[in-house]
Amino acid sequence: MRVYDIITKKKLGEPLLDTEIDYVIKGYVANEIPDYQISALLMAIYFNGMSMDELISLTKSMVESGDQIDLSGIKGIKADKHSTGGVGDKTSLVLLPLMASSGLKVSKMSGRGLGHTGGTIDKLESFPGFNISLSSEEMFEIVDRVGFAIAGQTLNLVPADKKLYALRDVTATVDSLPLIASSIMSKKIASGADYILLDVKIGKGAFMKDIDHAVELAKVMVSIGENFNRKTGVVLTNMEEPLGYAVGNALEVIEAIDTLSGKGPDDFTTLCLFLNAAILSLTGLTASIDEGIIKTEALLKSGVPLSKFKDFVAAQGGDADYIDHPERFNHATYQYEIRSDINGYIAEIDAEKIGICSLMAGAGRETKEQSINHSAGIVLKVKVGDRIDANDILGTIYTGKENMEKELSDYFRQSIKIVTESVPKPQVIIGIVDKNGFKDLRKKG
Amino acid sequence: MRVYDIITKKKLGEPLLDTEIDYVIKGYVANEIPDYQISALLMAIYFNGMSMDELISLTKSMVESGDQIDLSGIKGIKADKHSTGGVGDKTSLVLLPLMASSGLKVSKMSGRGLGHTGGTIDKLESFPGFNISLSSEEMFEIVDRVGFAIAGQTLNLVPADKKLYALRDVTATVDSLPLIASSIMSKKIASGADYILLDVKIGKGAFMKDIDHAVELAKVMVSIGENFNRKTGVVLTNMEEPLGYAVGNALEVIEAIDTLSGKGPDDFTTLCLFLNAAILSLTGLTASIDEGIIKTEALLKSGVPLSKFKDFVAAQGGDADYIDHPERFNHATYQYEIRSDINGYIAEIDAEKIGICSLMAGAGRETKEQSINHSAGIVLKVKVGDRIDANDILGTIYTGKENMEKELSDYFRQSIKIVTESVPKPQVIIGIVDKNGFKDLRKKG
Repeated sequence: MRVYDIITKKKLGEPLLDTEIDYVIKGYVANEIPDYQISALLMAIYFNGMSMDELISLTKSMVESGDQIDLSGIKGIKADKHSTGGVGDKTSLVLLPLMASSGLKVSKMSGRGLGHTGGTIDKLESFPGFNISLSSEEMFEIVDRVGFAIAGQTLNLVPADKKLYALRDVTATVDSLPLIASSIMSKKIASGADYILLDVKIGKGAFMKDIDHAVELAKVMVSIGENFNRKTGVVLTNMEEPLGYAVGNALEVIEAIDTLSGKGPDDFTTLCLFLNAAILSLTGLTASIDEGIIKTEALLKSGVPLSKFKDFVAAQGGDADYIDHPERFNHATYQYEIRSDINGYIAEIDAEKIGICSLMAGAGRETKEQSINHSAGIVLKVKVGDRIDANDILGTIYTGKENMEKELSDYFRQSIKIVTESVPKPQVIIGIVDKNGFKDLRKKG
Repeated sequence: MRVYDIITKKKLGEPLLDTEIDYVIKGYVANEIPDYQISALLMAIYFNGMSMDELISLTKSMVESGDQIDLSGIKGIKADKHSTGGVGDKTSLVLLPLMASSGLKVSKMSGRGLGHTGGTIDKLESFPGFNISLSSEEMFEIVDRVGFAIAGQTLNLVPADKKLYALRDVTATVDSLPLIASSIMSKKIASGADYILLDVKIGKGAFMKDIDHAVELAKVMVSIGENFNRKTGVVLTNMEEPLGYAVGNALEVIEAIDTLSGKGPDDFTTLCLFLNAAILSLTGLTASIDEGIIKTEALLKSGVPLSKFKDFVAAQGGDADYIDHPERFNHATYQYEIRSDINGYIAEIDAEKIGICSLMAGAGRETKEQSINHSAGIVLKVKVGDRIDANDILGTIYTGKENMEKELSDYFRQSIKIVTESVPKPQVIIGIVDKNGFKDLRKKG
């Protein structure tokens, strides 16, 4: 078998055999096939796509390229969630306690943030003492007792994806539907859960810029999941503005605690309730999503999810007292309030720019080696659609860096567009995709 | 400027600016841009093509990536020819003497062969003493005196093409029209001639598999040439079977001498006459190709081209006595005659397989380091369309290797297809393309 012939086939639009796909993935992970051949193949895939058979072969080869987690030691219904990522996305911190309170078991691997989106691990490390290095035994014990655990990626899960993603990232082949689908699904399948819920973000700052492409991606991922005997559902959600108000590690943890206490931002609370209801429906624990929402609302009021979150933080070595006393989290040295110059309506809050501003304030890392300031970030005071008056606060920037007020404030201002005409509030939930297809849940005008 | 953005533009089908193309070529030649980004860009070019503006920018950047030959020191009309290559293609050995005898000046750079097609330099080195390492002064002196000279590539002509071609060769991006056109034209433009005649081969063993694509390529190359103020013409020719009868270095030289003596194979003689006529017409030395053919036929009969060939070989240090006494060329130790088992008609002689058989016999090199046996090769006794009887000789294999009779004979037989129904003789000349477009010269019926 020769890579040259495999590139040629894909270039000509001929389907690749599973043996050919496996040869490419194995050879690439083993450093036997050079980057320049793989990047040509990836670009040919961008243009000619992949059939479902090819996608299943690709996902299978990627899954088999590394370790696979066996969750059979955990009793109960094993579920997992994944978000395609976004700015201010602290969903795991609220959704996992909701899932655990609903009777599901969640053993989640998570990563650190790089660039303008934050990682769940970084957020959790705002708690002093929080430990992400768990052995399988420790992890299973916590999941069994508390209902969920979150660990850093110590296992070698899908090394093929790590190599392919790094190459796609520098060869403009990130935005290829089959490559996105196989990347996400291989990691979820290797992680071992039987039920997989995916939150696909749509909007300017997201992978997916429009609904049609997102629906197509969602359908493909559901098919892949079902083919591997994993019940898979997708919720399509809006990512035109940051989720909630807080961006930055401890700031997001505090917002998550507020949400678990029933005092969270509307958009973020709506999203968490809906995602948990979608999982309940997927696993059959409720007959419908609507029933799941009613059940989850009641759960949230009961205080059980907040209590689960405390148990979880404590079980992983963190100081859970911070949850009752969020004022104990470190405070940033400098706080800059940004005020509006004019009256009007918030027409746009550019999620990517807010993310970069937060990164500049010290909340993220630009290279893997950088350390982060857990207290840095941004707390917005407005959402798209809000009416504001001149001199109203638009948001507050938190940073430990000196002499950055002008630079940060200017960047922050660039991310917010104010208009004179009123603007509708964006809807958080766009729709769902499961094996029955796409269901549009947008409320009509 | 970022290569990533340039790849993205081409991927989305947006035209690249000349500054962007120049950035890519300069950066690649300077080893500042990695292969894996260029191979992704090449694949995107394969799919989305290039506009004429982009192609002119690309060709210009490639030409400027290395040395450019200044032929202003040579008096007269400076012309050059190029063939897209093929098995048994000894055209330069006959065409350059014809061109010189017609009053043109030809200063030609040529390469060694690699794989199953032979290089002109290798063929000429069948003459003991032949020297291909000429200084510019020596080259110009010989061109001035004899009319033509052929040297190895000592200058650093179009290094961008060397790097790009090597990468295309392993990433399945060789067969991209804009990449073929810019590769050929950049080398011709850097070589300095004012008139460029291109022989584009069409057929199974050639770059171009069908006439439509070849015409498109020819038109693009003519446009590029005209844009650089080089009068450019293209002759489209058939390459379904090897050219002439001889394949292998000294064997081809002998066939070239026969042709210059008026005793060459029909197809090869027809091709050489037509190509010279096409150049005469391109330069305006004759009013038409038909007039050029009459003039060239007369020239060939006069014996002047053969005499020019002798002067040329002597001028470059070769023993020109071999031309009058071809029996002096080294003879291969082993000669195997292959005979037909059946009566019938020759339906196919696979040029690529004959080339590989000749390579196996020792006439070529598989890696750059190998040495070649100038006496090895194949002399066919048949052409497509010939009627043969059982036991007639199909051809003779010449080799210096022991114990290869069975392997070489079997391979040779595989390349020839014999049928019971009569088969038409292929036409050598398919048509011409110049700035007035394509003229189909195939005879009907």
